[in-house]
Amino acid sequence: MKADFINPFLISLLNVISTMAQLELKPGTPKRKVDEVARGDVSGLIGMVGPQHRGSLSISFEKGLALEIMRRMLGETATTINEDVTDMVGEITNMVAGGAKRMLDEKGYEFGMATPIIVSGPSHTITHGADGTKIMMPFESEYGRATIEICFE
Amino acid sequence: MKADFINPFLISLLNVISTMAQLELKPGTPKRKVDEVARGDVSGLIGMVGPQHRGSLSISFEKGLALEIMRRMLGETATTINEDVTDMVGEITNMVAGGAKRMLDEKGYEFGMATPIIVSGPSHTITHGADGTKIMMPFESEYGRATIEICFE
Repeated sequence: MKADFINPFLISLLNVISTMAQLELKPGTPKRKVDEVARGDVSGLIGMVGPQHRGSLSISFEKGLALEIMRRMLGETATTINEDVTDMVGEITNMVAGGAKRMLDEKGYEFGMATPIIVSGPSHTITHGADGTKIMMPFESEYGRATIEICFE
Repeated sequence: MKADFINPFLISLLNVISTMAQLELKPGTPKRKVDEVARGDVSGLIGMVGPQHRGSLSISFEKGLALEIMRRMLGETATTINEDVTDMVGEITNMVAGGAKRMLDEKGYEFGMATPIIVSGPSHTITHGADGTKIMMPFESEYGRATIEICFE
């Protein structure tokens, strides 16, 4: 996968979190995911299907960061990953994929987006089944880490 | 969602597990998922995108059932949900969605399939973000339970 293809997802995540939660995530170093596994307490997943490419996107949040985004976006103080938090993670995933889709459209990559799925459970792991390179990128904040993973065939 | 639309997924799951693992799952009662949450130890998820409909499918397995399917499909005795097990769950999810897609095509519903994503982690929960009715259907076996969930807009 070219940077051309990956960057829209990273930019879109930074944009969405900055706009919706007034929180600036600090990008880490993107890695090809081989053995490394991202763990999160709540993750949003979305499938994308295009005429030439198909794949999936996931965004995993550590609990502390998910709750802080919740507090900032909705003014709600949650102490557990409840239904409001999973709804918010689904919404963020949708917005990140939608933003990336628009940028990719302009570059000539066309995609349809599936609907988001949200997974919760302490320290779960995500494996992307697409038969392509997996890119994993951590984002740090003082409240915890978010990790975006992208895999396209 | 009409039975017309749901049945292909249920039939396809029964077919795939019967063919690949010589294991007959016993269908339970389908439910509209409202508060009820399916828990699994390993789940395969896939997004589907069509011109009129889009949504997602998940199949969650309890650990004992996943390991038994593994043993029957590949003759491999695993004691934990390792990479081979997650690969197998991804493959099953792909086959179930592919089988349902073929049946839906014949009924005039056209879909593109995204690539599968596999989640592992003890007793995680799945929430489908699509803005439509969620159908959840448990399947029992002596090794543990599988739960299929379908949600389409």
